Amino acid sequence: MKSYRKELWFHTSTRRAFVNITGEVEEALHESGITEGFCLVNAMHITASVFINDEESGLHQDYEHWLEQLAPHEPLNHYAHNRTGEDNGDAHLKRQIMGRSVVAAVTGARLDFGPWEQIFYGEFDGRRDKRVLVKIIGE
Amino acid sequence: MKSYRKELWFHTSTRRAFVNITGEVEEALHESGITEGFCLVNAMHITASVFINDEESGLHQDYEHWLEQLAPHEPLNHYAHNRTGEDNGDAHLKRQIMGRSVVAAVTGARLDFGPWEQIFYGEFDGRRDKRVLVKIIGE
Amino acid sequence: MKSYRKELWFHTSTRRAFVNITGEVEEALHESGITEGFCLVNAMHITASVFINDEESGLHQDYEHWLEQLAPHEPLNHYAHNRTGEDNGDAHLKRQIMGRSVVAAVTGARLDFGPWEQIFYGEFDGRRDKRVLVKIIGE
Repeated sequence: MKSYRKELWFHTSTRRAFVNITGEVEEALHESGITEGFCLVNAMHITASVFINDEESGLHQDYEHWLEQLAPHEPLNHYAHNRTGEDNGDAHLKRQIMGRSVVAAVTGARLDFGPWEQIFYGEFDGRRDKRVLVKIIGE
Repeated sequence: MKSYRKELWFHTSTRRAFVNITGEVEEALHESGITEGFCLVNAMHITASVFINDEESGLHQDYEHWLEQLAPHEPLNHYAHNRTGEDNGDAHLKRQIMGRSVVAAVTGARLDFGPWEQIFYGEFDGRRDKRVLVKIIGE
Repeated sequence: MKSYRKELWFHTSTRRAFVNITGEVEEALHESGITEGFCLVNAMHITASVFINDEESGLHQDYEHWLEQLAPHEPLNHYAHNRTGEDNGDAHLKRQIMGRSVVAAVTGARLDFGPWEQIFYGEFDGRRDKRVLVKIIGE
């Protein structure tokens, strides 16, 4: 069994953002030399997500609007977590909706995806350095 | 390490549906000959889910009702995504709640499940051909 | 390829609870002797979750409050599932938000985690014996 590990770094200029990282994950897969196996991609921070959906700007607006409805950033004192001095209580909730990680199949040295599947980094508490882990196992 | 890949196809007669696919995944596992490892089952479309829960019709009604509350299909113009000409903005949101995929342990050539665990395909934009990927790795 | 399997048992005194199980998963990983691979941790029951987030009591209060808003326990007759004689319709919904399982990378014989990542068992229908599966594959 072979394994490969790589970190991707992000620093978004806004508090919340969606970044298409499919190309970076494909690059890691190419570097790994693995042709059959599983590829795990996960946020290493607990106020961010990795998920698979569509590269379509209207949809990303819909996610932004919907997540703000389900877990609004303000008022800050709505969240017990913010009593610690943080202002990211909402981000910990949003991340649960969108998920921590993706496991993708690797077949024939490629991500085994349907026609519209793209991998996104979902940032809910940005404006600082944060990491995503890519770990691939197989042969 | 061995690996095995199979596609399952679905075409539901309704826009939304839950289909128990546990038997089909068990069949794929049997075909694989793998006795210890991991089994990934994922929707290859971004308006559908694969998830594990209970085979109970009342619960499925509850999911349907709840998801319509959280992300209603109408009004269509509520979703920026629908400006592309699609009418499935809600389906992309529902799928995030229910999840894209399941990773199940394989032990002794069986899905290593608790007593009530069943795998479902969750369709949120049906009435056309759609696929689920089963990928199993192990030995 | 090596594989290792362990069950963790829980019996919470309250209906809902969050239990930090990171130490128990690390112990299972140590017992496995696996240094590179993937570690799957999943609830074997369909009214419980395994998820990764922060060990912070205010945040856990926020999760409790938020999940009760999204899928309140009462009124019991709000859920078709409860017509079966159960009173846990809400728990099946809460578990979908928080997720069934976690897949963690194993690197250098350790859980390959960011600085704040901790694994939690989320109970939504407790006061009875319930199980979590830890399955590790790799070498």
